Amino acid sequence: MAITSRDVARLAGVSQPTVSRALRGDPRVAAETRARVESAVAALGYVPSEAGRNLVTRTAKRIGIVVSDLTNPFYPHLIGPLHDALEDHGYRMMVFTEPSDSQVSVGQLVDGSVDGVVLLTSDVGSALPAELSRRRVPFVFLNRESGPGVGDAAVVDNDLGGRLAAKHFTGLGHRRIAGIFGPQTTSTGRDREMGFRLALADAGIGLSPELTHRGSFEFDTGHRAMRELLALPSPPTAVFCGNDVVAIGALNAASAAGVRVPDVLSLIGFDDIPMASWEVFQLTTIGHDLNLMARSAAELLVERIKGSSTEPPRRIMSRPHVVERSTTAPPSPRQPS
Amino acid sequence: MAITSRDVARLAGVSQPTVSRALRGDPRVAAETRARVESAVAALGYVPSEAGRNLVTRTAKRIGIVVSDLTNPFYPHLIGPLHDALEDHGYRMMVFTEPSDSQVSVGQLVDGSVDGVVLLTSDVGSALPAELSRRRVPFVFLNRESGPGVGDAAVVDNDLGGRLAAKHFTGLGHRRIAGIFGPQTTSTGRDREMGFRLALADAGIGLSPELTHRGSFEFDTGHRAMRELLALPSPPTAVFCGNDVVAIGALNAASAAGVRVPDVLSLIGFDDIPMASWEVFQLTTIGHDLNLMARSAAELLVERIKGSSTEPPRRIMSRPHVVERSTTAPPSPRQPS
Repeated sequence: MAITSRDVARLAGVSQPTVSRALRGDPRVAAETRARVESAVAALGYVPSEAGRNLVTRTAKRIGIVVSDLTNPFYPHLIGPLHDALEDHGYRMMVFTEPSDSQVSVGQLVDGSVDGVVLLTSDVGSALPAELSRRRVPFVFLNRESGPGVGDAAVVDNDLGGRLAAKHFTGLGHRRIAGIFGPQTTSTGRDREMGFRLALADAGIGLSPELTHRGSFEFDTGHRAMRELLALPSPPTAVFCGNDVVAIGALNAASAAGVRVPDVLSLIGFDDIPMASWEVFQLTTIGHDLNLMARSAAELLVERIKGSSTEPPRRIMSRPHVVERSTTAPPSPRQPS
Repeated sequence: MAITSRDVARLAGVSQPTVSRALRGDPRVAAETRARVESAVAALGYVPSEAGRNLVTRTAKRIGIVVSDLTNPFYPHLIGPLHDALEDHGYRMMVFTEPSDSQVSVGQLVDGSVDGVVLLTSDVGSALPAELSRRRVPFVFLNRESGPGVGDAAVVDNDLGGRLAAKHFTGLGHRRIAGIFGPQTTSTGRDREMGFRLALADAGIGLSPELTHRGSFEFDTGHRAMRELLALPSPPTAVFCGNDVVAIGALNAASAAGVRVPDVLSLIGFDDIPMASWEVFQLTTIGHDLNLMARSAAELLVERIKGSSTEPPRRIMSRPHVVERSTTAPPSPRQPS
């Protein structure tokens, strides 16, 4: 940039340090002087460089969002509410997206360019949160967490969500039930599977390996697993999917195979993203309040940044519920149970 | 941060300026000294602050991406390839997302924290590109552009795409044809509509106002417009949609109304995002190479940053083609033409 604070100082007829002081709102600068500096700034179109400003004020008022899977339709639906919640607290948002969280350069998060970090796609035991802790960079987990007590977290009760899905299936009379779960390396994948299995066990139903699939939270995971489940000698009558995106992959595979949902096959997803309510899907799912979860994460992080929260990590857990649409029904009498 | 370059200097037994010189690769620092500084850095876990580093080197090696509509499934599919292309050139990506481009704070793009900017969602005549030009911040338009000659641009031939859609419909024998177009304030919305109308006119077909809808590039736009088109006394037999997301909204509305596609209604979208090929949609669309477009934008921007391109703005236009799937067929003989 051609224009420097020196130019501003010259035009305003003040010293360079006075320009800096005026721009950061230092009370020692007289109102008349500040006004002169401000009109010089406006006349020249001067923008204080970030570098200089950070050295002076040490408050960038920016939050970094780390997300490794932006093409997954789930994450954009969290980023919208998160943006609004952070803005309400006076923070701007910058999204750092890499193919995986482990490829995020820690340097750009700990170099002072952001005041805090929201982690959306942390794996269990991932190194990034520990590194942020060590560098004393405030952070919060949103939706996924790397482990208990590692940091503040705003999550849904995944265990309860899994239980609700299992009870919905058993309540309808299903006995031959399968799961297409998320990765065991994610808290969401692991806890939804655990809750689902435990509630099935309560009803005296086990999940055999042939009825258990796992994969990343993607369309293709659901699509591939459903093809394999439908090829079994005795396919399941009900399938719980790790999230809505996986369930929609499964629905597409069922549609391609000519398997009628819910007549022959029941399906439940997780999250209740907008796509779940589209007419061609009408997916029964485990819903939770994405807005509230994003807002809770923003609040935890802002408290941590402002230092008003020096307590041990806090965890805000929202309560999921069954959203019943058109992909669940009692098992067909012609189907083996 | 507790650890400063002063601590590094003390541990390495050198002066503070030597630490700075060693860390920015200054050739005047002896290899042995540099090694001593580097082991001190490693031992202390020192991270040079961005602020200090920028003042010293003036190269942040970061690109800002401005996108106002991240929940639209189209944009994440451009951001992935863009990330990889920029990484190949040694740049990291930061995404700035606001509800609209006009809400993006110019300050954070011109304060030296990014080397260049990729604009994904500029409107025709929007102020941000002009402001970036004035501040001499290199930028490139990707997919949408605000006007001819305003800046470098990597786009698809939207006019040709619109023509191809019209010719596909007329070639199948459709005469009663409708359009659900994007906003006239976007180059993509405007040029796709123009090409479509001109090719229909060549075939002696006009688009009456009742068969013309416009709206943002969203699911709801297609859903709402399709409901209105189906309620007409004489509904169209073929509908061209401004992009795939709009077309999928239209498909869902047709499905809800029990209108069979393509037997009774043909549909064409634009972009060929992955969702277009899902079994439940099998959308015929105007495809183009999203990867190539993103890569071209990255190259234009990097050349502009390196100053090797001092020429007038360049425009790389990729060629679209018809991707024929299952939403297009000749009009049903029972339908009015």
